[in-house]
Amino acid sequence: MEPRISIITVATDDLDRAVGFYEAMGLKRHAGITDGVAFFQMGGAILGLFPRADAEKDSGVTFAAAPSAVYLAYNTRSDAEVDEVLAAAEKAGGRIVKPAGRAFWGGWYGYFADADGHVWEVAHNPAFPIAEDGTISLPD
Amino acid sequence: MEPRISIITVATDDLDRAVGFYEAMGLKRHAGITDGVAFFQMGGAILGLFPRADAEKDSGVTFAAAPSAVYLAYNTRSDAEVDEVLAAAEKAGGRIVKPAGRAFWGGWYGYFADADGHVWEVAHNPAFPIAEDGTISLPD
Repeated sequence: MEPRISIITVATDDLDRAVGFYEAMGLKRHAGITDGVAFFQMGGAILGLFPRADAEKDSGVTFAAAPSAVYLAYNTRSDAEVDEVLAAAEKAGGRIVKPAGRAFWGGWYGYFADADGHVWEVAHNPAFPIAEDGTISLPD
Repeated sequence: MEPRISIITVATDDLDRAVGFYEAMGLKRHAGITDGVAFFQMGGAILGLFPRADAEKDSGVTFAAAPSAVYLAYNTRSDAEVDEVLAAAEKAGGRIVKPAGRAFWGGWYGYFADADGHVWEVAHNPAFPIAEDGTISLPD
C-alpha cells in the first residue's frame, strides 16, 4: 500500500441534501458522473457522496449511523478562516458541534456536522504547513 | 472551503492495534508526534489514528461504532494490485468484507475492514487516472 487515500466516501441518507450542503460550502460537483452518486475533486483526492442503501448493497456492509468514527478535517491557513468555514457550514445547513476555540496544541479549531451528521474538524494548526496547492504536511 | 481534505482520522478502540495494522499495510508512522496519536503522511493528506475516547472528549461527540458510514478507498493501477492489497489487509489482521470481483463500472474491486472494523474499498478504476505521485483525478 502506497501512502495515499484516493476516495473518501460519505454514505448519505439523502443524496440531494448532501450535495446541496457541500455545494453550499463552495465545492464544485463533478459534472461528468452524476447518476446516483456525486463526486468532488479535492486536490489529489476525491470526495464521494453515495446513498447509504447503495453503498450497503455494493459492499455487503451495514454501515453505522452518523456521526461516523472516521471523520475528516479541513485545515486552514489562519484562525479567521476557521471561523469562516464554521459559519459557512452552519449557513449551509450543517450544525456547529463545537464552536471555535483554542486547542491545547496551540491552534484554533472547532467542529461541524454535515447534513447527515458526519463530523468535520476545522483547524488552523501552524505546525502542519499547507502548501499553495492545499496539500498539508506533517512537521519534519 | 477550498477543495481539499487535510486529515482523515480513524477513531480507534485500540491505538496500538490500529497502528500495527496500518504499519503492516506498509505505511510509515510519523516519528515526530506519537503521544497518544499516530499520524501517517498520505501524499498531500494525513491519516490520523486517535483513541475513540480522546476523540469524543475533544469533539464532544459520541461516535458511532464501526463500520463507519464515512469510508475510504484506495485506488490501484492494476487489477492485480487490488488482489495484493486485499491479501495484505487480511495478513495484517484485517478482514475481507467483499472479495475482489468485477464491478458494474468495469473495474476490479473489493473491500476490507481494518482492525477496528472500518471499511476500505480497494479498486482499480481505469476511468480515474492515478498520477505518478499517487494523486487521483476524476475523468474530464
